[in-house]
Amino acid sequence: MADTYVLVHGAWHTGELFEPVAAYIRAMGHDVWCPTLAGNRTGDDRATVGLTQAAQSLVDYLEEKNLTGVRLVGHSYGGMAISRAAALVPGRIRRLVYQNAFVPLNGECLNDMVPPHYKALFDGLAAASANAVMLPYPIWREAFINDADAALAESSFARLNPQPYRTFTEAVSLPTELAALQIGKSYVNAEQDTAMPHSMPWHPRLSERLGLFRLVSCTGSHEICFTNPRLLAEKIVEAGRD
Amino acid sequence: MADTYVLVHGAWHTGELFEPVAAYIRAMGHDVWCPTLAGNRTGDDRATVGLTQAAQSLVDYLEEKNLTGVRLVGHSYGGMAISRAAALVPGRIRRLVYQNAFVPLNGECLNDMVPPHYKALFDGLAAASANAVMLPYPIWREAFINDADAALAESSFARLNPQPYRTFTEAVSLPTELAALQIGKSYVNAEQDTAMPHSMPWHPRLSERLGLFRLVSCTGSHEICFTNPRLLAEKIVEAGRD
Amino acid sequence: MADTYVLVHGAWHTGELFEPVAAYIRAMGHDVWCPTLAGNRTGDDRATVGLTQAAQSLVDYLEEKNLTGVRLVGHSYGGMAISRAAALVPGRIRRLVYQNAFVPLNGECLNDMVPPHYKALFDGLAAASANAVMLPYPIWREAFINDADAALAESSFARLNPQPYRTFTEAVSLPTELAALQIGKSYVNAEQDTAMPHSMPWHPRLSERLGLFRLVSCTGSHEICFTNPRLLAEKIVEAGRD
Repeated sequence: MADTYVLVHGAWHTGELFEPVAAYIRAMGHDVWCPTLAGNRTGDDRATVGLTQAAQSLVDYLEEKNLTGVRLVGHSYGGMAISRAAALVPGRIRRLVYQNAFVPLNGECLNDMVPPHYKALFDGLAAASANAVMLPYPIWREAFINDADAALAESSFARLNPQPYRTFTEAVSLPTELAALQIGKSYVNAEQDTAMPHSMPWHPRLSERLGLFRLVSCTGSHEICFTNPRLLAEKIVEAGRD
Repeated sequence: MADTYVLVHGAWHTGELFEPVAAYIRAMGHDVWCPTLAGNRTGDDRATVGLTQAAQSLVDYLEEKNLTGVRLVGHSYGGMAISRAAALVPGRIRRLVYQNAFVPLNGECLNDMVPPHYKALFDGLAAASANAVMLPYPIWREAFINDADAALAESSFARLNPQPYRTFTEAVSLPTELAALQIGKSYVNAEQDTAMPHSMPWHPRLSERLGLFRLVSCTGSHEICFTNPRLLAEKIVEAGRD
Repeated sequence: MADTYVLVHGAWHTGELFEPVAAYIRAMGHDVWCPTLAGNRTGDDRATVGLTQAAQSLVDYLEEKNLTGVRLVGHSYGGMAISRAAALVPGRIRRLVYQNAFVPLNGECLNDMVPPHYKALFDGLAAASANAVMLPYPIWREAFINDADAALAESSFARLNPQPYRTFTEAVSLPTELAALQIGKSYVNAEQDTAMPHSMPWHPRLSERLGLFRLVSCTGSHEICFTNPRLLAEKIVEAGRD
């Protein structure tokens, strides 16, 4: 039976970068959509777009395409957007799948969940660049895509785009905390993901905020969408199926 | 050389459910036994059977079959029974193998090692059902057998039986703490097992109570006996061999 | 392109024991050297050799062979030696790779990073044996080489040599802390390594002292150099490449 998957990218990414993963999920017989959130599109005003607008663009997408029974997958920052979408259009969502993603409490922003040294770094970068931050390459290469060779680390980095900093600093409004939300939830954890340091990890620190959830793990870095899209596709389906 | 394995099931299970694992271990040349503990047998009085009686039934089994040099494997709640058996008939046991199992200190009951929300849930279920608790299906599906598809999650759930609650609330008597016991010990840890939340995990929280022990890990959920019996058989032998 | 790897063994080992790993790395097209540190060589005075002398012997080796652009790999205690070498000859080193290795802060000795029960054990052994400690076999078999069968556990143990205890008790001098050192750093973590108990683990407890570093993980014990040299070779290259 064909299920409907919507893959929501992380910071600095676009929906297009999820297409190799989407192709594998489609080959398993499912429908897959890869929107790009407001703020990461060509021509977006990166000085002003915040989380509210980015999440609304996801909701608009679900409504325009009239998607229902959605397995809504968020990677990293995408976890902020899918959490807000679940508050706005719960009736369209069959299951939330967080892939090494942020799981906010009501009133939190992304920066509330990152280590202090990242926040200090991003504050400085934003001040120097009209509120649009780019991830420094050494952090990308060592901590985000540690399972790539140098060529892939460089070619994937070249495809990223600056992130509107207000998407990291604007709080999310969740009238019902995620742990209490009556929607199925899963967490996909790539086990060598050190984008969050392992002393302050994605799982279980953030995953357990979901209340009852299904854990699916695999080998890989934060950027397994580049380094092993086939494995990620399999794990997303293990996480997203009923 | 043929070794002797005795596989002791967890709560809600029977020995029969370990038979697929046993078959793979037998194919490696060993003798394998799969008793069902008192309290999980057809016709048992689930209102009254406690841990003492369940553990005694395991000791009786070892004595009736006159088993010696036993690699005694306990899954989950089965860890309580093998710990007590080691106190009663240490001379029959070559090595204790805990598979995502409880490792008690003297005087503890199983409930002393579970998170408060489980204890509250089970207390309520026991009060409503003459002291025999059944695991709610959503917890089974998401947190116990997270690596199964829906069909296997449902078919395996249908084979479970109600657990006498006194097996969770009755303290175990261990004249010698397990860490001081002069018997070889191993811990098999299926790494996606979230039956205990990973913030309060099986390993190393409970495993390190064994003192010097051998860790063997593998991919899988708490219910790898259903989802990957062949891998579990291999890991039990890696854990149980000299 | 051929890279240059220098593999620095752990306590009780010699460079020769890294040769099977080196052979696999050479087959990938690289140059590999496996020195034996002062203190672990035949005829060394194990009552007197300390960390300073052991680390100096590594520096001497790099200089005698005139090695540059080195991917300097340290296993376990070898992490102490490569950390000191990086302070002495940073210009020869392209990247530091710690394989389940100690990562010291300035002024620490190895014993500052081990659990109290190990320190007490080693203190007693050193007092009884003119300052040269041997690892007791049960600890080797259960906690160091837990993924071996009994035959390999025994044959590898027979190849170890007594460790001069002053290499564990002498502090390292690091004028620049490793986190601030401008050299690439990686950590290879064999995930079933319980030589350090998992409640006090190698990673992230010690690895995160490196500041920005690349994590590479694999299945295996502390002694994967014996139990899976091919996998270790692959992981060392994933960690050591640019």
